Amino acid sequence: MRKFSSFERVPDFARGHVKEMRVRWALEEAGLPYREMRLTQEEKTGAPYLKLQPFGQVPCFEDGEVSMFESGAIVLRIAEQSEALMPRDAQGRARTMSWVFAALNSVEPEVAHLAAIDLFHEGEEWARLRRRGAVENVLHRLRQLAGWLGDRDYLEDRFTAGDLMMTTVLREVRQEEVLVQFPTLRAYRERCEARPAFRQALADHLAIYAQAAE
Amino acid sequence: MRKFSSFERVPDFARGHVKEMRVRWALEEAGLPYREMRLTQEEKTGAPYLKLQPFGQVPCFEDGEVSMFESGAIVLRIAEQSEALMPRDAQGRARTMSWVFAALNSVEPEVAHLAAIDLFHEGEEWARLRRRGAVENVLHRLRQLAGWLGDRDYLEDRFTAGDLMMTTVLREVRQEEVLVQFPTLRAYRERCEARPAFRQALADHLAIYAQAAE
Repeated sequence: MRKFSSFERVPDFARGHVKEMRVRWALEEAGLPYREMRLTQEEKTGAPYLKLQPFGQVPCFEDGEVSMFESGAIVLRIAEQSEALMPRDAQGRARTMSWVFAALNSVEPEVAHLAAIDLFHEGEEWARLRRRGAVENVLHRLRQLAGWLGDRDYLEDRFTAGDLMMTTVLREVRQEEVLVQFPTLRAYRERCEARPAFRQALADHLAIYAQAAE
Repeated sequence: MRKFSSFERVPDFARGHVKEMRVRWALEEAGLPYREMRLTQEEKTGAPYLKLQPFGQVPCFEDGEVSMFESGAIVLRIAEQSEALMPRDAQGRARTMSWVFAALNSVEPEVAHLAAIDLFHEGEEWARLRRRGAVENVLHRLRQLAGWLGDRDYLEDRFTAGDLMMTTVLREVRQEEVLVQFPTLRAYRERCEARPAFRQALADHLAIYAQAAE
């Protein structure tokens, strides 16, 4: 049985955005059953968990054959087992891998930097001074992404794990001043979010915190 | 024949650090021949190149079967074809993939943020105010990495593409105040840099700019 780790509690702003959502969504797309390992704050940084996830983050993942970590790696592992996430031919595989890494390494760093300024450093002088530059960097990357996407439905000719990862990154762009400039990217994100597998994953993810609040 | 893109010219500080070095090193470890596609500044942002690399970065990669981009994805593609970079068993593959993503997504963002402050924003007020926090974030990640590495030679029980990627990220840590705190990580980086494949890749990479200066 596949299992991955999630956090028992997270701050309000993180609900719907924790990186275990990527693995949950991928497993739903693949139609594979799974169990969760919910971590308390203490467990997250304890020695036993650091053996599974050296950086104390979620998710880690086990499937009876492997024990691994990093959402990108786990999603690729699941994609190798499901054509719903990655075509079987070499070129389809290579394009999927390219977009998984592009989402995490070419787009997410700028998006995460701006998100950190707005969520964690609001009111700090450096953040006030840096914000305009950080917005410019996000706009630059999203312009390139929108330029690639054009009027297509997906990054390649069908939905892949690359779209899954890119959607989770675009969900981190919460600045209306940015979103308003990219109607095609917003439509792309909403197209991916409308998938039954995403909706199921999001509902199951949010249910953790509904339970925790009871 | 495999080929990847590189830049004809880069600023001095980038020499030895351009992301095409990762692919070059991987191909040397795998013992696979290759050709280069050297880009001028104009070519880098021109429409033909953006079809190969949507973000105008290096490297992109072709091998007769696939056309792809993102150094992490390309290194995994090469690793799938060479046991020198990735064990053949499922667990060995999963660990290699985990560390490739960990290098790029859990360690590099903090390292790159500090590098940007020192290389691109020196003297700016926000950078001066932010620097201490950025250093703390790098120290936090490197402490976790050093905690995992312990007294081992590599991240797992042998050299893999994960060590290759992590080494290229550690090479971006140029702050002596940081390095001095992590003698085992410095030794680990130097152990990986001492590999003949790395030395060959670095020499070939630097030769581009020696030629360009003539």
